[in-house]
Amino acid sequence: MILTVTPNPAEDLTWHVDRLRPGETHRVGAGASRAGGKGINVARVLAAEGHDVLALATAGGATGTVLADDLEHSGLRHALVPISGETRRSIAIVDEATGETSILNEHGAALSPSEAADLLAEAARLGRTASVVVISGSLPAGLEPDAVASLVAELIAAGVAVIVDTSGPGLIAAARAGATVLKPNRDELEAVTGESDPVAGARVLLDAGAHIVVVSLGAEGLLVLDATGAARGIRARLPKPLHGNATGAGDAAVAAIAVALAEHPELRAAGDADSTTDTTAARTAMARRAAAWSASAVLMPLAGALHPDHAALEAEVVVTALEPQESA
Amino acid sequence: MILTVTPNPAEDLTWHVDRLRPGETHRVGAGASRAGGKGINVARVLAAEGHDVLALATAGGATGTVLADDLEHSGLRHALVPISGETRRSIAIVDEATGETSILNEHGAALSPSEAADLLAEAARLGRTASVVVISGSLPAGLEPDAVASLVAELIAAGVAVIVDTSGPGLIAAARAGATVLKPNRDELEAVTGESDPVAGARVLLDAGAHIVVVSLGAEGLLVLDATGAARGIRARLPKPLHGNATGAGDAAVAAIAVALAEHPELRAAGDADSTTDTTAARTAMARRAAAWSASAVLMPLAGALHPDHAALEAEVVVTALEPQESA
Repeated sequence: MILTVTPNPAEDLTWHVDRLRPGETHRVGAGASRAGGKGINVARVLAAEGHDVLALATAGGATGTVLADDLEHSGLRHALVPISGETRRSIAIVDEATGETSILNEHGAALSPSEAADLLAEAARLGRTASVVVISGSLPAGLEPDAVASLVAELIAAGVAVIVDTSGPGLIAAARAGATVLKPNRDELEAVTGESDPVAGARVLLDAGAHIVVVSLGAEGLLVLDATGAARGIRARLPKPLHGNATGAGDAAVAAIAVALAEHPELRAAGDADSTTDTTAARTAMARRAAAWSASAVLMPLAGALHPDHAALEAEVVVTALEPQESA
Repeated sequence: MILTVTPNPAEDLTWHVDRLRPGETHRVGAGASRAGGKGINVARVLAAEGHDVLALATAGGATGTVLADDLEHSGLRHALVPISGETRRSIAIVDEATGETSILNEHGAALSPSEAADLLAEAARLGRTASVVVISGSLPAGLEPDAVASLVAELIAAGVAVIVDTSGPGLIAAARAGATVLKPNRDELEAVTGESDPVAGARVLLDAGAHIVVVSLGAEGLLVLDATGAARGIRARLPKPLHGNATGAGDAAVAAIAVALAEHPELRAAGDADSTTDTTAARTAMARRAAAWSASAVLMPLAGALHPDHAALEAEVVVTALEPQESA
């Protein structure tokens, strides 16, 4: 079982306008509402691909009820930790003329100390029965990076692979706790490490204690680096980038990484000096699938779904070894 | 008692952004959600000013529950006709840098024939016990202008004053049904009558059967015309327009008109040839208050509220008689 943890989920609301004109009034069709947040998107992808997955999230207020109802309706297996604050909203306004999407992301309610403790305890309890735990998205106020790091360390010690896809202090704390995989994008990596070169930035996280760092580069694919150094780094990308809705592309990559870790436990030791040819093959397959799933998510209107042709895309992905000292 | 009827209410959602940048992602604070729709805004103003008011609206789906909860919480006396569709949303994004508000108005769910019949029957039943009925806002699909006109005619025949503030075919149908007051804005009036001059447009509605037409002109105040011709028309405006949030200004004017009709039943006969000096004074007072309440609503951040200084504003309003053939 793969467990996804979403500490700061959202009710995702999407409207389409013919043309967004700031300051004007627009007549629009009914907006679409659904349960969102990075870990929930990861879980949707995994469930759609036939994997055994459980989505853990917080939920509170009227929007929390909408979130719970949508998860119930979608059939996604889930567990919700009740909070007294309102689950946040994320608003997407799609301009049909330009294809651009304007997004408003609410910060999200702060967790009380007991709510944060409940979420961490539930993640630890459920996570111990999982092969892989994915912790995705922003950490709400009240959920301290150090507390998340303790959860990561506890799960790693219990033999569970842990993927962390967050930004800011939580990312570096997860590295120090020995997370199996971190998946920052280029901006998140630079914000935390100060390195504008993704390879250099990834090395900072590897040196801090992460086993594998996957850097998502949008249309340029992704990099996979592990703790043995840049010579083992690989880059995976499509020959031609696809255009569409980038929201959820990173979550699809995380889903692919979770499947790879569940199916190839040897990947968890990828940073060790005794990694084998098998490990190298598994790492290449992981990079290939992550790039393909990420690209296929771009073709879909909503986050949390893959285009049906993702297997064909996987065959098109070009995987190359990074030369020592190569920059991205 | 004053009854307001809102056939197409909305959950009003408002977010504030530092600067709205189309195509970009914005971090925002929690949005504000509350029950909205023109008739509900009118009722809020009336209740806040101490008048006996009942707000009738439709409600359906998760947003209908939010609407009902907010009405319950606000203490506004209300009656809701359940519908199977979702109550629509109206989204306002306030740009703090420019002061501009971008609005997305959902169309609203269609009413089934039985839902439309339920709403009309409830409006007729409650309306017969009211002194004034206000029908405000757009008509959802499934609620035919002719059916609304029948309701107007039935209430007028029962001695109830009826104010209709809508646009499109419903406006002309209400005129033909003999509505006591119609309150289009300049654009709505031109769309229905084809007349770019508000005085000429108002005459079209008066000729069709309306007793009084109040044309709201935004910062330029408002016009009041009745069925005896342009010589009886008056204009009311502040010497200097106020700047702020125009949403709800028209609803505040409608609330003032409803109070005037409730307190001065002789206004309902303002179109008759035997109108007296008292009627003229009451009509002038109505115009003065409508202009002041409308302007004072502009000073408030949310629709459905008046600035506490509205009585002082009322004294500042300048009321002038329109000369025969004067254009606005």
